Amino acid sequence: MSDAIRLMLSPRSIAIVGASPDANKLNGRPFHYLRRDGFDGPLYPINPKYTEIDGIPCYPDVAALPEAPDLAIVVVSAKIASQTVAALGKKGVAVAIVFSSGYSETGEDGARLEAELLAAARDNGIRLCGPNNLGLINAFDGVTATFSQYAYETPKPGPVAFASQSGAFGTGISALARSRGIGLGYFVNTGNQADITLIEVLDEILDDPRIEVVSAYLEGLRDGDQLVALAEKAMRLGKPLILTKVGRNSAGARAAASHTGSLAGEDRIFDAVLRQYGVIRARNEEHLLDLISAFSCCPIPSGKGIAMVTQSGGAGALMADRAEELGLDVPVPTNETRDRLKLVIPAFGATGNPIDVTGQFLAEPKILSDSVKFILEDPGVDVCVIWLQLMVGYADVLVDIFRDLKATVAKPFIVCWLEAPAGALRTLSDENICVISATERAVDAAAGLIQYGAARRQFDDCKPQPVRILNKVTDQPPVAVASMKAAALLTEAGMNLAPATLARTAEAASEAAEKLGYPVAVKIESPDILHKTEADGVRLGLADAEAVAEATTSVLAAAHAYSPDARIDGVLVEKMLTPATELVLGVRRDPIFGPIVMVGLGGIFIEVLDDVAFARAPVTPAAAALMIDSLKFGVMLDGVRGAPAVDRAALIDAICNLSVFAAAHPELVELDLNPVFAGPDGIIAVDWLMLTDPEDAG
Amino acid sequence: MSDAIRLMLSPRSIAIVGASPDANKLNGRPFHYLRRDGFDGPLYPINPKYTEIDGIPCYPDVAALPEAPDLAIVVVSAKIASQTVAALGKKGVAVAIVFSSGYSETGEDGARLEAELLAAARDNGIRLCGPNNLGLINAFDGVTATFSQYAYETPKPGPVAFASQSGAFGTGISALARSRGIGLGYFVNTGNQADITLIEVLDEILDDPRIEVVSAYLEGLRDGDQLVALAEKAMRLGKPLILTKVGRNSAGARAAASHTGSLAGEDRIFDAVLRQYGVIRARNEEHLLDLISAFSCCPIPSGKGIAMVTQSGGAGALMADRAEELGLDVPVPTNETRDRLKLVIPAFGATGNPIDVTGQFLAEPKILSDSVKFILEDPGVDVCVIWLQLMVGYADVLVDIFRDLKATVAKPFIVCWLEAPAGALRTLSDENICVISATERAVDAAAGLIQYGAARRQFDDCKPQPVRILNKVTDQPPVAVASMKAAALLTEAGMNLAPATLARTAEAASEAAEKLGYPVAVKIESPDILHKTEADGVRLGLADAEAVAEATTSVLAAAHAYSPDARIDGVLVEKMLTPATELVLGVRRDPIFGPIVMVGLGGIFIEVLDDVAFARAPVTPAAAALMIDSLKFGVMLDGVRGAPAVDRAALIDAICNLSVFAAAHPELVELDLNPVFAGPDGIIAVDWLMLTDPEDAG
Repeated sequence: MSDAIRLMLSPRSIAIVGASPDANKLNGRPFHYLRRDGFDGPLYPINPKYTEIDGIPCYPDVAALPEAPDLAIVVVSAKIASQTVAALGKKGVAVAIVFSSGYSETGEDGARLEAELLAAARDNGIRLCGPNNLGLINAFDGVTATFSQYAYETPKPGPVAFASQSGAFGTGISALARSRGIGLGYFVNTGNQADITLIEVLDEILDDPRIEVVSAYLEGLRDGDQLVALAEKAMRLGKPLILTKVGRNSAGARAAASHTGSLAGEDRIFDAVLRQYGVIRARNEEHLLDLISAFSCCPIPSGKGIAMVTQSGGAGALMADRAEELGLDVPVPTNETRDRLKLVIPAFGATGNPIDVTGQFLAEPKILSDSVKFILEDPGVDVCVIWLQLMVGYADVLVDIFRDLKATVAKPFIVCWLEAPAGALRTLSDENICVISATERAVDAAAGLIQYGAARRQFDDCKPQPVRILNKVTDQPPVAVASMKAAALLTEAGMNLAPATLARTAEAASEAAEKLGYPVAVKIESPDILHKTEADGVRLGLADAEAVAEATTSVLAAAHAYSPDARIDGVLVEKMLTPATELVLGVRRDPIFGPIVMVGLGGIFIEVLDDVAFARAPVTPAAAALMIDSLKFGVMLDGVRGAPAVDRAALIDAICNLSVFAAAHPELVELDLNPVFAGPDGIIAVDWLMLTDPEDAG
Repeated sequence: MSDAIRLMLSPRSIAIVGASPDANKLNGRPFHYLRRDGFDGPLYPINPKYTEIDGIPCYPDVAALPEAPDLAIVVVSAKIASQTVAALGKKGVAVAIVFSSGYSETGEDGARLEAELLAAARDNGIRLCGPNNLGLINAFDGVTATFSQYAYETPKPGPVAFASQSGAFGTGISALARSRGIGLGYFVNTGNQADITLIEVLDEILDDPRIEVVSAYLEGLRDGDQLVALAEKAMRLGKPLILTKVGRNSAGARAAASHTGSLAGEDRIFDAVLRQYGVIRARNEEHLLDLISAFSCCPIPSGKGIAMVTQSGGAGALMADRAEELGLDVPVPTNETRDRLKLVIPAFGATGNPIDVTGQFLAEPKILSDSVKFILEDPGVDVCVIWLQLMVGYADVLVDIFRDLKATVAKPFIVCWLEAPAGALRTLSDENICVISATERAVDAAAGLIQYGAARRQFDDCKPQPVRILNKVTDQPPVAVASMKAAALLTEAGMNLAPATLARTAEAASEAAEKLGYPVAVKIESPDILHKTEADGVRLGLADAEAVAEATTSVLAAAHAYSPDARIDGVLVEKMLTPATELVLGVRRDPIFGPIVMVGLGGIFIEVLDDVAFARAPVTPAAAALMIDSLKFGVMLDGVRGAPAVDRAALIDAICNLSVFAAAHPELVELDLNPVFAGPDGIIAVDWLMLTDPEDAG
């Protein structure tokens, strides 16, 4: 993708501006680590104080370099970093990692300094990673270009890439990965992201055939399309993408505390888009590492059936509880499977699911290995968790069992081993067998595999349209589109709306009502009155022409009284429909992901329960179905308290149509269809409000 | 409490029936461990095969013992365990731990064997722990009376007791505790609990002054009163009680899968009762150990304000997310606190909450210690989590900081340290400083402290009445109490009901309606018709005497047609009330906890959202308030969509009155007040159904 980022990740030569011979200092570490870890290209330390470091020539300044290296590491103070970066650009260096801090993380003055730094880079044709970061590691090629504590030992390469916006948290997570035996092929910290973003880095890393699993810790996101493109690429390549993002609630940032609601909304959209594009979201660092471990060891399950094989009924029950909580299937084995299990498991064990092989398997290891094989051959089972604890003295027997299983079963299994002997853990890690050290977390990891499997099948079934979305951003308040115009646009887009006519006089309103059929509603129509009820501008249940005429006169008068300067277009006469299950459909323009289509349950459900689902537009029918399935109280659509079931196909159609409309109209800021009446024979919007960017309105 | 259980936990002499000299065998381990760990009372191995074991005389049978030991361990086959237990009883031994398996855990034959074993014990005046268990450890006194793998090393005593129904899971949890440096004063496995229950054991252990925290892993419970008494005792003694119980959903046990709904209900009641009595419930083994660690190291916070001090903005945000999710306060520090923090924290740090001290504290440790001191002195902060990672080379500095903090601050703090150096962990454990190794889990542990603090304050405020509840159990179907009789009972109990009169004829019904005032409802009254609507037995909104007469005739005819044999008492004429926010109040008789009072939101909220709260009756006003607060959509009570706020005091009164009524009437099986109209000036039940045990009815 990007030459500069490729060079940054796999440089053949590296300059270190501000290098020190002291390996204990931040500015001495990268040189020391690169030499220790066998980086085999030329290294160019730059520091006017030294003529050589550790036997390697040291240069007084950038201009003195004998060639333009692929990558430069900048470890100078923020004051002189801009001129350093400019000099590097002039020399022809493609990319610089700027460790220096004192930028936007410190406030406004720092933000100005960061803008200068970026300008110096842009003006001189050099890309920037950082500032305020701690560098990167490409463990395959000995590129330990970092001062992170994680590099205190030589990083072990492996098929996992991990990128982090945070240096300290990223270091902690990498170190935890190491102690689990997970090899990180890449570890990249992007810091302030003045230029190069974490998403760009991951996009480049995805192309590396040595990488199989891509993971990241994210604090914020500027460009949703970039993330969506990354997710689609990861899906095409069959490489799972796992993210932890903070800001689930009011987002740590104390400054944003007053925006709790809006941030919460944004995070919900973020979450929905991740799910839509098959990205697995990890709650925290342990969950992230559990998922990394599972994805790098296990094949992807083809369904959501989980089996548990234990030596403890209690642990089995705990896992079954968790599996159900996560919406997994805990299938009863078929009779055939149970018969096979009964032949190997002692009578006081359990052949249901969870399966209890009892402690007897220590005497007869075949009890365990056969049980796992048999249950994985059950058609309802897609993944198995094998639970055990301690096993002092039996570690070798168990390792042999798991090695044998790995070689012989096709479906994934996860070993949940409490307080496992350290030696067994090392061997199993070398054998690429997933071991998780806590009971519920093992089930959570299996659930991640299952979620990804479902997303991949959906992706294979129906690839999302490659629509690049224009996302208009405006500071001006949006304007309302006239109801009849909005109705025409929506009807053309395939939406059903309650029949309505605009009338300018009482007489015209009565005539319109006669044509529509009674009962009708009369609503004030004015681009200046968005809240019609507040302006006393709505009359419902009008049963004859006289009532319509009276209502029209009264509504027009009320509107004038409410807002004497409002432009009044007349009244909307609308046929009233038989109430049905109330839904809400809508479009929002998200600052990160652009047009977002929304579906929710109406009435009390939207107002109090806030039960809505989001997806980035446009959506496929499968994605629309997933939206509906993700409603917490979706059972309302099946017919509750005597109501008939809602026409699901019509609802899916409507969501898709609305999403295509949203994607095609970048000027659309907000669209609310509320309520939408949903019955057994289709769905129809009773009220609609369309707001657009004023520059495109009219 | 119980002499036998006290002797079991602290025996001065122990017999081991079926002892072996082979320390690798299950039946050789207890003898070996007891000797290894310095148990200083007489040991009596019993086995006809040996005359001595390891220099200690071995006896051929129980009768040959020179005295009756305090405790006997039985490690013989199930076939002969009964006669062994009988012989022990005859010898005068007070209590036996029966390791033998092959009992109720294996099915019906085993259950019969277990009943025999229990009978042998009862007949011979000896108490039983087990069978199918792996024994107990009293680490204070060298009583390692177990074959658990946990005892492979000498158990380290400490102020924590842990009891487990499961042997395998219990062993795993104990071993995890050890590797965290948590000393378990007691570890007890109760196995099948034919006689002695886990609750009885904990009750005895609570009296040991060396024990400060009591914890357990539970699979089921027979006697709710026992648990409630234990919880009250723990609260009186100020010793936190922490439980993990499986069966949150369909409860592992596959056999019970068809009862999912009812089991789920029971678990909700279990959960509610734990909360009511200040028991802390841990989700899984990690949560349990985190809580044990926090409770054994930290003072109890006096409010729910949490502060986070970090070296990573990302980790801070993750913790703030979690704290909000758990309903904790993440207070902004006062201006005074911020001013103090600003004097020590570098400008690029953060003095809000989370507080980011930056990596600079490694150069100046005072930055960290002062920040924690200052934020803990903030009036809004009750507990602090200090987050850090790795710190290779700085472990000693950090340990000194935490030691100093422990000595100087009065409020609790938890250290969240990712990938901490092992030496630092050992030292901090010795210093009794709580360290948790994962970010969210540190917040979860703080939340546990906060929840317990609130429960203890509530307990101190208003001690629950020491009511011992009679819990009638009957197999016969309950019978309905006549509406007017039920109304009289409920009115006497302080409940408000819609005015109603029983009428036997159309004429009488009209007269009654005239007195009540219109509109009225007419409902069939028959002990044989519980579902009045199904029998077409309800007429609403009757506006005059004629309508009432007609309705009465029609309802009586419909009831006769619906069920010709039904006993018809007449009709209930009931004054119709202005609709208000709908609630549901009720009583259930739980098989474990007896009378449970319930409050929920009505209509769609009960039918679809199942938003109800439970508590064991009788409840205090504070407990009733907690029930209301725990409703997920309790915001409905504040007035939504134009409705006025509900009279909270009246609702609390009603819950309390109902709970006192429930506790005083053991014959009550079920009581449903649904709907209850709740407005700004009180609450009133519109419909009521009372079902009682037939033996007490009439």
